[in-house]
Amino acid sequence: MDPIRVTIWNEFVHERNHAEVGRIYPEGIHGAIASALRAFPEFRLRTATLREPEHGLTKDVLEETDVLTWWGHAAHEEVEDAVAARVQHRVIEGMGLVVLHSGHLSKPFRRLMGTSCHLCWREAGERERVWVINPGHPIARGIDRFIELENSECYGEPFGVPAPDEQVFISWFEGGEVFRSGNCWVRGSGRIFYFSPGHETYPIYHNPLIQRVIANAIHWARPRGSRADVPRHVPVEQAREKILSRGPQLHTTEGALQ
Amino acid sequence: MDPIRVTIWNEFVHERNHAEVGRIYPEGIHGAIASALRAFPEFRLRTATLREPEHGLTKDVLEETDVLTWWGHAAHEEVEDAVAARVQHRVIEGMGLVVLHSGHLSKPFRRLMGTSCHLCWREAGERERVWVINPGHPIARGIDRFIELENSECYGEPFGVPAPDEQVFISWFEGGEVFRSGNCWVRGSGRIFYFSPGHETYPIYHNPLIQRVIANAIHWARPRGSRADVPRHVPVEQAREKILSRGPQLHTTEGALQ
Amino acid sequence: MDPIRVTIWNEFVHERNHAEVGRIYPEGIHGAIASALRAFPEFRLRTATLREPEHGLTKDVLEETDVLTWWGHAAHEEVEDAVAARVQHRVIEGMGLVVLHSGHLSKPFRRLMGTSCHLCWREAGERERVWVINPGHPIARGIDRFIELENSECYGEPFGVPAPDEQVFISWFEGGEVFRSGNCWVRGSGRIFYFSPGHETYPIYHNPLIQRVIANAIHWARPRGSRADVPRHVPVEQAREKILSRGPQLHTTEGALQ
Amino acid sequence: MDPIRVTIWNEFVHERNHAEVGRIYPEGIHGAIASALRAFPEFRLRTATLREPEHGLTKDVLEETDVLTWWGHAAHEEVEDAVAARVQHRVIEGMGLVVLHSGHLSKPFRRLMGTSCHLCWREAGERERVWVINPGHPIARGIDRFIELENSECYGEPFGVPAPDEQVFISWFEGGEVFRSGNCWVRGSGRIFYFSPGHETYPIYHNPLIQRVIANAIHWARPRGSRADVPRHVPVEQAREKILSRGPQLHTTEGALQ
Repeated sequence: MDPIRVTIWNEFVHERNHAEVGRIYPEGIHGAIASALRAFPEFRLRTATLREPEHGLTKDVLEETDVLTWWGHAAHEEVEDAVAARVQHRVIEGMGLVVLHSGHLSKPFRRLMGTSCHLCWREAGERERVWVINPGHPIARGIDRFIELENSECYGEPFGVPAPDEQVFISWFEGGEVFRSGNCWVRGSGRIFYFSPGHETYPIYHNPLIQRVIANAIHWARPRGSRADVPRHVPVEQAREKILSRGPQLHTTEGALQ
Repeated sequence: MDPIRVTIWNEFVHERNHAEVGRIYPEGIHGAIASALRAFPEFRLRTATLREPEHGLTKDVLEETDVLTWWGHAAHEEVEDAVAARVQHRVIEGMGLVVLHSGHLSKPFRRLMGTSCHLCWREAGERERVWVINPGHPIARGIDRFIELENSECYGEPFGVPAPDEQVFISWFEGGEVFRSGNCWVRGSGRIFYFSPGHETYPIYHNPLIQRVIANAIHWARPRGSRADVPRHVPVEQAREKILSRGPQLHTTEGALQ
Repeated sequence: MDPIRVTIWNEFVHERNHAEVGRIYPEGIHGAIASALRAFPEFRLRTATLREPEHGLTKDVLEETDVLTWWGHAAHEEVEDAVAARVQHRVIEGMGLVVLHSGHLSKPFRRLMGTSCHLCWREAGERERVWVINPGHPIARGIDRFIELENSECYGEPFGVPAPDEQVFISWFEGGEVFRSGNCWVRGSGRIFYFSPGHETYPIYHNPLIQRVIANAIHWARPRGSRADVPRHVPVEQAREKILSRGPQLHTTEGALQ
Repeated sequence: MDPIRVTIWNEFVHERNHAEVGRIYPEGIHGAIASALRAFPEFRLRTATLREPEHGLTKDVLEETDVLTWWGHAAHEEVEDAVAARVQHRVIEGMGLVVLHSGHLSKPFRRLMGTSCHLCWREAGERERVWVINPGHPIARGIDRFIELENSECYGEPFGVPAPDEQVFISWFEGGEVFRSGNCWVRGSGRIFYFSPGHETYPIYHNPLIQRVIANAIHWARPRGSRADVPRHVPVEQAREKILSRGPQLHTTEGALQ
């Protein structure tokens, strides 16, 4: 299998200013995810975080990234609009994007969804059971009927996203809610997977089944075909069928407006 | 049937600075569409254009609009970001949006789609045949197998939009292209229809079948249910199932972050 | 509003041979649903049951039906294949179909889905909470965030159906499962809604919110456009663009095979 | 890459009783496709045809097949219902299915779609241009903007199938029609691709680009996850959350009905 170039992005704020989070993720959430993904020899891993120049997501880094994973929570607004737009455009070109937990309110995800991305939530350390509803989907590979998380943050419906192109997981919560917790979309030539478990005060990214889902999602999201098209004017002489230009024209006098 | 409050938005630039367009649409494209829709007594019509304050789309106007139609071409960038965001949010709340022709590159549509919205194009006055591919769909009501337009601008694939939730029309072009010309999406509680025919140098909005499609689309796009949800914190005491809070918590010490 | 001709179909077996079910539904489940729907003056109601000739679903009855509701459980195999096929074809033509509870294994539904329609289940009288995940959808109209059923049969994922065209409800169960409990599909010109609550040993169809969902679903499922097409040979002389027949032909010598 | 076990099924009627078809496909359409696919070392190929016992599709053959391709035209009704059902069930379990040209009316495809699968058609040797509308899709890999076929049978809309889960190609025809010519569906754990070019009186399966699409489709359709679920009763003692059985029960007295 061809290597897959993965960039693991993390806000990396709570691990440094919240003792309990720092204890669970001493190398940061990005460090924990990278450590888990090292078990997969086909991945070429790098990490990037908010406080780096351009948040570590320069044009070159993104150009060399097949799949980007994104975790953020406290500082979504600190991500520069230009970088968020750059990520959006790379996804449309074909880069995969795996958005984790509170990344649902990140700028790149909101731009790509076009909706509020809002949800209901409760932090009570309650039990979550992530059900596989589509056992034939490659992202569910290696997962039996469900994943149980003894302590999790509750995310509840309605989740303000476009209807997923494919639904892989739906979660049950002890306090009475349900949530579409594993959702796929295609945007341009890029594939997007959102996976909701991952609240930073619980060791969820140390769970091997959660790691497996993330690895599966990276495989699923890697680019498959051509880059999405750029706009293109097709002059009448280049039409595949011979036609003659007829009628009044706007564009000849004003330049090529679509 | 309850009245449907329709706001017809038009850029209204080419009708004033391009003689041929002005001849075809002496009252503007918005005037032609409004005139056609007057045949439907259930519509309460108003129009709005780019050069009005806030482009005629104040908070109050949008609040009183069930369905907004949008035509723009030459001056997409003159639409203020704040107004584009306001339209986007009203759609998510539940307002219908009918985007016409070159409105595919308008700010509200691009924000709602999250993609490039690019396409290929050619202005040669060629023949377009708009095929009904979903005869059971309410937007195709009253249209037989197709609509033929003797002169049209060619729009071609690939069209850089998310896969439509429902496909109603696909167009054939004399010069050899195909195009997904009538597409439905749901975003939040709002319904969006994009309909591609309508180049301003041809009298397409005077065609009764085109008018019928626009009227059908307005009926389809009117709000049906509740406004989409706002984000909501559900405290542990309000959980529907009795649970006790367990484990470390981030939010108590920092305020309610999702 | 035009009247909507509704036929309420019920197997009507358990009400007669199981005392507890007979006590809850003395007039049959069809009788209880019909009684509830009488509150909606736009419905013209009739009922039909398994033991009637042709199960009460003659060609004429179906021809005069805009929306058919279906409840069955114990005797799916007693439904004649010819009648199941007739229902399937009428749906493809444009008749709406609302499938209730254990109707997921009925012949018409399985034919229309093309899949196993299997699920997991448990009869323990546990609590079900039917969450609205799409508050803008017309089938959720009048329902707040959820419907709570104190006693329900658990249906669990994976549910062996094609991905719904629209998802309206997802259910939470006390015993730990989730289930896609309110799902929309379009097949041909017909609309199909499956709604899972309704086990016969609990008085679920006496619940006003459940009744409201069924009424909403009937409105949603009524025919909207034209009947779906029949196959059609288009001779070369009738092509919309002038073409000449070229190359070898199979059909001239053998009759019109597609 | 793991080998993919491919079974190429062909009706193999017209090649033997129609001289022109026999001239184009002296080894049958299955022979031509097999010959082309031999260029892909990851495929383990076998063929099967209508006149073999059980049409060459015994339980063992299907069990050992990852992806089945299907071409039929004149003799759909000769396929035994039991074999058609066997194919359907294997797809639901996870086997991929690539349906070619007039296979749209084959029994396995119609069973899996649940709809009429009807279309309009004309045999005039006209030009078809198969447009890529989704350049990022793996089935479009290696295809530029379109494939041109100088002589093809026209298939036209409306095509009586459920809305595809993904749309890859849309075709333009010289005589004025459009057609959704490359469509993906998921059913159970199985992936289905329908590709319309392939009328037997033209040498379409000798076209390297058409061969490439078929090879891509086989890769796309190979099984990815687990077999779709069988129905399963979950006794109250096995519920993941501790619950007590409440209320009346139907199943204890009658056996485990869902």
